[in-house]
Amino acid sequence: MPVAIAVDCMGGDHGAGVTVPASLGFLEKNKDCSVFLVGNESVIFNELKKLKFDKKRVSVRDATQVVTMQDEPTQALRGKRDSSMRVTIDLVKEGTADAAVSAGNTGALMGISRFVLKMLPGIQRPAIASLLPSLKGHTCVLDLGANVKCEAEHFLQFGVMGACLFSAIGGKTKPSIGLLNIGEEDIKGNEVVKAASDLLKKSGLNFSGNVEGSDIYIGQTDVIVCDGFVGNVALKTSEGLTQMLAQYLKEEFDKGYLSRFAGLMALPVIKQFRRRVDHRRYNGASLLGLRGIVVKSHGAADSFSFEFALEKAFGEVKNNMLNEISARMSEINEDVS
Amino acid sequence: MPVAIAVDCMGGDHGAGVTVPASLGFLEKNKDCSVFLVGNESVIFNELKKLKFDKKRVSVRDATQVVTMQDEPTQALRGKRDSSMRVTIDLVKEGTADAAVSAGNTGALMGISRFVLKMLPGIQRPAIASLLPSLKGHTCVLDLGANVKCEAEHFLQFGVMGACLFSAIGGKTKPSIGLLNIGEEDIKGNEVVKAASDLLKKSGLNFSGNVEGSDIYIGQTDVIVCDGFVGNVALKTSEGLTQMLAQYLKEEFDKGYLSRFAGLMALPVIKQFRRRVDHRRYNGASLLGLRGIVVKSHGAADSFSFEFALEKAFGEVKNNMLNEISARMSEINEDVS
Repeated sequence: MPVAIAVDCMGGDHGAGVTVPASLGFLEKNKDCSVFLVGNESVIFNELKKLKFDKKRVSVRDATQVVTMQDEPTQALRGKRDSSMRVTIDLVKEGTADAAVSAGNTGALMGISRFVLKMLPGIQRPAIASLLPSLKGHTCVLDLGANVKCEAEHFLQFGVMGACLFSAIGGKTKPSIGLLNIGEEDIKGNEVVKAASDLLKKSGLNFSGNVEGSDIYIGQTDVIVCDGFVGNVALKTSEGLTQMLAQYLKEEFDKGYLSRFAGLMALPVIKQFRRRVDHRRYNGASLLGLRGIVVKSHGAADSFSFEFALEKAFGEVKNNMLNEISARMSEINEDVS
Repeated sequence: MPVAIAVDCMGGDHGAGVTVPASLGFLEKNKDCSVFLVGNESVIFNELKKLKFDKKRVSVRDATQVVTMQDEPTQALRGKRDSSMRVTIDLVKEGTADAAVSAGNTGALMGISRFVLKMLPGIQRPAIASLLPSLKGHTCVLDLGANVKCEAEHFLQFGVMGACLFSAIGGKTKPSIGLLNIGEEDIKGNEVVKAASDLLKKSGLNFSGNVEGSDIYIGQTDVIVCDGFVGNVALKTSEGLTQMLAQYLKEEFDKGYLSRFAGLMALPVIKQFRRRVDHRRYNGASLLGLRGIVVKSHGAADSFSFEFALEKAFGEVKNNMLNEISARMSEINEDVS
């Protein structure tokens, strides 16, 4: 089945200079796919002129406005109805495209997606989910910043959505689910987390109890649920730490002739290591809970990185993730009632 | 001025086998200090027999009970009045020792310290603080797990205490303070964090606004305040990520002959790198807000690591941290009223 992806070409720090070549790179690898490139027509055609591509699989959709990083969600929603972001999501709503990808303002993307696409039945809040590398493979963590305050039932919904995403991308039928807490014992944590634990236990999901921050990267659990404040801090802390460690390693190899020689010898190994921990390969957070597939790329993504976000959207379409979430949510609602 | 440190010798995974040699190592380096070794007398004397030390600077205090990791704080407080932990804190209360160090159960240590020592005026909640490495030196982060739910004024108090700790250990007179949030803009975050931001702005502290998780390791800010749930997750996430990266690096250097040869060449550099990021050098979290200096060592600390916790306690005494906190709190209370 051919799959069409709508791409917000104007979003992110680099706009069409990154999104257009990445989209064509993606098409090159996935012969069954087509893309809708959305944004300022002349800017997009200007980028397309520089590159070779299969014209039958590329459509350009003009949009006269751009959502900026400073725009409030409501501003973007009401004041910019012809933004590239809005037109991209509209293409999914009307069924022209199977998924949307944007590197733009997260809050605005969430607001527009929620307004245009609406929520799946049984899901009250959308969540941002991403797969992070672990010692065992990868861990799906959500919410990474959509909801700064959550109630217990939201954690349960995150569990269902995370499990479906992990199945769709990770290929495991009944992934294990952990609740991010400050200790493994049941008595730990605040009231909301304790109540969430009770709901998850009764849910029929493969719930393995409380986990700690370290478990994200140890990888004993497939899916880890948390509120968006905590998840965002965990994610950003990881980015900062990785940056510091990379800098330290560089500094050590730069100290004196002997170290520099050792660095030269070790270069292929270090390169391989860098490749493995390259955060660009993990680009693309899924906006879950919507009646449509939307993937958010990192704003600073380069073309290499943006392609991974497109691949992620394609994976969710291929594996029918939306139907999975709806089906599992209705099972859960039957169980609970 | 001679300084006396009370050491809970029975706490932690390794008990006296680690705490006693570490205490003697600490004395060796700090000729002005003495220690009270608290716990099962015969166990402690057994360890002392194996080592050489200056007898005038070592006192042993017997305690018949031990707080376990499974004990609830109230259980440890009411049921074990002759625990090594309790006797250690009592020595600080009665003025016999200037500071206490324990590797035991955090919740129990917090409960006992709070009950025995009481809070400093103006401080409602104790906090756990630690210095973490950063690209610029180090960052003081608190709370790391004492308070799973905080009100806005607690963040302000954390700011004052963190600034005093950073001054005492980091030697900077007016350290900058950041509020951990999910974005730098004022509109980000939940209601409590927004209210905390308003209080910090008016506090007269050197407040530099919202910071993100990545800033812990980037180090633009000296002190970062957050609630204990978020702080604990950030800390544990960092531990897990470091472990994963170390494992990845090892695996890459283990792949085939060439990589192993490169690893051999790079060994001194890698060792230097490991030394620099060695979490043992950062051992020792301060329990702040109490009328006494209490430092919590990691439970799994080895002797090398436990010495750093002792050094931290010594640094807080030397720099008169408690008076600093009291003085600054009264300034703030005058400003606010």
